Amino acid sequence: MDHNLILVIGGGPAGLEAARGTGDLGYPTILVDKRDVFGGTPISAGYAALTPDMRSADEAMAEMIEAVLNHDEIDLRTGTEIIAVSGSAPELSVTLRGPKGEEQITISSAIIATGFQHFDPGRETQIYGYYEFDDVITLVDAEKMLKAGNFVRPSTGEPPKQVCFIQCVGSRDRQIGNFWCSKVCCGVATKEAIEIRDLVPDCRVFVFYIDMRMYGFWEDELYWKAQEEKKVNFIRGIVTEVTMRGDTVVVKGEDTTMGRPMEIAMDVVILSVGMEPSEGTIEMSKLFNIPLESHGFIATIGGALNTVTTSVPGIFVAGAAAGPADLEDSISMGGASAMKAAAFCRNKSKELAAAG
Amino acid sequence: MDHNLILVIGGGPAGLEAARGTGDLGYPTILVDKRDVFGGTPISAGYAALTPDMRSADEAMAEMIEAVLNHDEIDLRTGTEIIAVSGSAPELSVTLRGPKGEEQITISSAIIATGFQHFDPGRETQIYGYYEFDDVITLVDAEKMLKAGNFVRPSTGEPPKQVCFIQCVGSRDRQIGNFWCSKVCCGVATKEAIEIRDLVPDCRVFVFYIDMRMYGFWEDELYWKAQEEKKVNFIRGIVTEVTMRGDTVVVKGEDTTMGRPMEIAMDVVILSVGMEPSEGTIEMSKLFNIPLESHGFIATIGGALNTVTTSVPGIFVAGAAAGPADLEDSISMGGASAMKAAAFCRNKSKELAAAG
Repeated sequence: MDHNLILVIGGGPAGLEAARGTGDLGYPTILVDKRDVFGGTPISAGYAALTPDMRSADEAMAEMIEAVLNHDEIDLRTGTEIIAVSGSAPELSVTLRGPKGEEQITISSAIIATGFQHFDPGRETQIYGYYEFDDVITLVDAEKMLKAGNFVRPSTGEPPKQVCFIQCVGSRDRQIGNFWCSKVCCGVATKEAIEIRDLVPDCRVFVFYIDMRMYGFWEDELYWKAQEEKKVNFIRGIVTEVTMRGDTVVVKGEDTTMGRPMEIAMDVVILSVGMEPSEGTIEMSKLFNIPLESHGFIATIGGALNTVTTSVPGIFVAGAAAGPADLEDSISMGGASAMKAAAFCRNKSKELAAAG
Repeated sequence: MDHNLILVIGGGPAGLEAARGTGDLGYPTILVDKRDVFGGTPISAGYAALTPDMRSADEAMAEMIEAVLNHDEIDLRTGTEIIAVSGSAPELSVTLRGPKGEEQITISSAIIATGFQHFDPGRETQIYGYYEFDDVITLVDAEKMLKAGNFVRPSTGEPPKQVCFIQCVGSRDRQIGNFWCSKVCCGVATKEAIEIRDLVPDCRVFVFYIDMRMYGFWEDELYWKAQEEKKVNFIRGIVTEVTMRGDTVVVKGEDTTMGRPMEIAMDVVILSVGMEPSEGTIEMSKLFNIPLESHGFIATIGGALNTVTTSVPGIFVAGAAAGPADLEDSISMGGASAMKAAAFCRNKSKELAAAG
């Protein structure tokens, strides 16, 4: 039996990088995705440009997919789900169900890169009127318009004159049980604000935030750029209500820097929805018997000193399946998990050889 | 010639993880550090506990060092510097100077993990009085006291009654040319604030900040914990001056949430100094001919989709040598760079074999 086969689950940025890594290290790898195309959330959610590079998501993901396509060591399966797992690494039996039916494989190690899903702003947080008002949209809805190069007020189809982002929708929110900060929404909203200003130069753009979490180089590359070159208005404030007055959306709340109530009419309100564990992430935790950490993502062991290793031997995790992650986190974790999975296989092969 | 030798430069978290990775993948590895002990900044700067786990830095780094010690594939050199580099990967000639003199080695690939240095708050930012007032210290000075389990007012040796942190010292500061956010100081200050409250329960602790960048799980694990369980006071404000009144330090500025000037007497003022490229990082960029990015750290190529690859073939970077990085970034990048360096060596060996 080949004690080297590695299964990578999920073909987004983390999984693509992980599969490329194990393949480049010479380990036979199967990369599966339940969707019909690789590329993960940047493709399925129709991202226009990536944060912070502002590079075309289609182009960037095509480059990553190209690296695993026609790779000698990598076998690709789209439209394929994991439906059963038994045994333990380095002899895990996994049942796949794909377009051609069911298939049984034996793997030595697995990398779970099943990502996140965006918070549904209609689920528990009713104050934003997402399902009631046409002109209240999410970061993801905005990406789709930006990708099409046509940013409009949904109710009229006209270019907007005034647009705002509301940060931390579904994040940092104890009432709904989402205690974490989703890490990327400040960056993504700022990137979209810049894109809107470029597409609709007459439009005023506001970002209502609690703390702008523009860490590292995002500080000057996105945040200062948005303020200085693109004249985006960042207002520290709390939004308490989104209502309609006539056919216009009105945002009510408090400007906490100025210490005064605010009430501003908006043509489009964009909700900066956060990250939650994806269904696939929850399913894989059950199938592979990996505990979830307190926020509901896949738990790693070793704290900050081991970002990809789970408590189940031979099973690793990469990207947002383990918690809020930006693209750089996902890529670094993808690479690190490839190293760990390959090293696990190598070590087990040596043990077996030594045992004769 | 062995086309597999990998050199890892810098024995902090990123370098230790990188060396363990290449070693575990079966590649002979030399790990060098110019300091006499491994462990990097957490050890040389005398960190008490790591952020966010609050685990003993000594214990955690000892565990990482243990993993490379007595590893069949890893050769360790402390007190050793790189003094010359010539040729190109996979045949790079490198001169090391260590306790036993100079040594010439030929390597196939290198990983630069030379980290950061803390901003010197006396360098250009005079408003904080770091070198004038005994009771104005840095995050690093505070770590040393916390590690000793004796947090006192330096001028008197007595336990303080009132302590504050001033965030963004040397970060987000255009005047001194440091445009970036150093990413970890909000987390580190909050961790120290919790430790001070534990050690000196009567002491009131304030954190003056612009934005609290408590991304991901730091939000509840550190930030909420500090506020709710430990009663740390976070005040959004700008500090404009630190002066003395009698024998007490006085912090002057503006509470921007309340919109009013503030003037508070403090027993200890802790400056949250940011990250700058270390001397070693600058030296390695010169020796290996790798360009620096606009902030002065080692430039990677591929933006967010390639976090560890430099423009020089076979030379990779991990951790804060490439920009502000938290421990998790450093560990993930360490693992990812190990994968890339090993894959580079493997690919070059295959090419050579194919060429006969």
